[in-house]
Amino acid sequence: MINIGLKVSYKGKAYAGFQIQPDQPTIQGFLEAALGKIFDQEIKIVGAGRTDAGVHAYGQVINFFVDQCKIDIGNLPKLVNAYLPEDISVVGAAFVDQDFSARFSAQSKIYKYVIYNNRYRSAIYGDFSFCFPHHLDIDLMRQAAQSIVGCHDFHSFMGRYADVKDSIRTVYSVDINRQGDFVELVFHGKGFLKNMIRILVGSLCDIGRGKLPVDFIERALEAKDRTKAGFTAPACGLFLMEVKYSQPIKFRES
Amino acid sequence: MINIGLKVSYKGKAYAGFQIQPDQPTIQGFLEAALGKIFDQEIKIVGAGRTDAGVHAYGQVINFFVDQCKIDIGNLPKLVNAYLPEDISVVGAAFVDQDFSARFSAQSKIYKYVIYNNRYRSAIYGDFSFCFPHHLDIDLMRQAAQSIVGCHDFHSFMGRYADVKDSIRTVYSVDINRQGDFVELVFHGKGFLKNMIRILVGSLCDIGRGKLPVDFIERALEAKDRTKAGFTAPACGLFLMEVKYSQPIKFRES
Repeated sequence: MINIGLKVSYKGKAYAGFQIQPDQPTIQGFLEAALGKIFDQEIKIVGAGRTDAGVHAYGQVINFFVDQCKIDIGNLPKLVNAYLPEDISVVGAAFVDQDFSARFSAQSKIYKYVIYNNRYRSAIYGDFSFCFPHHLDIDLMRQAAQSIVGCHDFHSFMGRYADVKDSIRTVYSVDINRQGDFVELVFHGKGFLKNMIRILVGSLCDIGRGKLPVDFIERALEAKDRTKAGFTAPACGLFLMEVKYSQPIKFRES
Repeated sequence: MINIGLKVSYKGKAYAGFQIQPDQPTIQGFLEAALGKIFDQEIKIVGAGRTDAGVHAYGQVINFFVDQCKIDIGNLPKLVNAYLPEDISVVGAAFVDQDFSARFSAQSKIYKYVIYNNRYRSAIYGDFSFCFPHHLDIDLMRQAAQSIVGCHDFHSFMGRYADVKDSIRTVYSVDINRQGDFVELVFHGKGFLKNMIRILVGSLCDIGRGKLPVDFIERALEAKDRTKAGFTAPACGLFLMEVKYSQPIKFRES
């Protein structure tokens, strides 16, 4: 069996999330259908991150096994893209080790959340940002974000129906920067719970506008109670940027 | 009569252009309908630039006359946006002089064209850029763009069915820059012909990839023949960024 890794970018708007679901448009569903046509066999893919409905990706990583591959790996992205909708794009392909799993070999992930901090909605960036009309104080947000970094029980920042054994996660860094009307929050962590980043962003928004105290997140972490954390920021602002592996995958791009 | 100016942003994808047309979705059509509801009278707007089907705008400017205005001008954008689709957004409003015309008072316009210079299409930026897969040499493009600046007869760079008396236009500057995979071309001119920027961009693309000589545009200008210029780059990469007036409009934003 040959193990193949792909780097995939998508716009989440039209999809019910990454993970395959019956009778719903999913990223996994479209990728498996396209790959099935190319390799003329049933393909089951494993994704690094099961992004929620509406969440975008620049650098999702998947892998799958095929019996044989007569295709030049450098041509595979173009071939797959021909069978995919316009809002899903394979941007790299590589042969990977037999024991590589896009999901279980992942060391850490980088997510970005984009806030459009303007009184009026953006006609251009509406699908790719969360329009927050109240002025955000970046310094307050950065101060509050310090309590996110480290190994914590993020139970308060976990969406309902999350199917996990424990809610302890390690966050390496949270970087918050303003570029004009855009406030970008970059989260680097070993892993994240369902809705965790979106609830952290919602909390940070209300801290940044001065509605909640700067130690709100610290106290919410201690409480281990979802009702003690902030609102869930919408999916359209969230991007899976990069999945890191101990051995970086050398995606062939030509 | 009260003369009101609005700054408008829109995503062009779903529209048959700015200018109103029967039985077609247009920016003008939606704006006039929304304003008609708010002012409870028939509204006829004048736009600074009649952007083509699919072209976007950050800073389109329009004006219109009303019998009276009891609304706080700072609240007008929010009110109008409530009656507009998500991909059209009023971002500023101002009372303007009686003799102000968004179209005829305009001194110059700034347009930006965005090329996504990557082998694979962008799932994220597909609606807002032109994916050109061949590597572009920015230096060659800049060299070629020098012949665009100044007052020239742009007959070769005019789309068919353009309804104009003469094809002489003045371009003040063309700035070309690369940011990672994106090549952005910013055109500042007194005015532009139908499709002019898109044909210039198409020509510059084939110069930048080395398919056409660097003096191609210079020679095409001399020929005054559309068949001597390059291809028309698609509308989805083009943005009307700003309309300049001798007296800048002070849009109230709060």
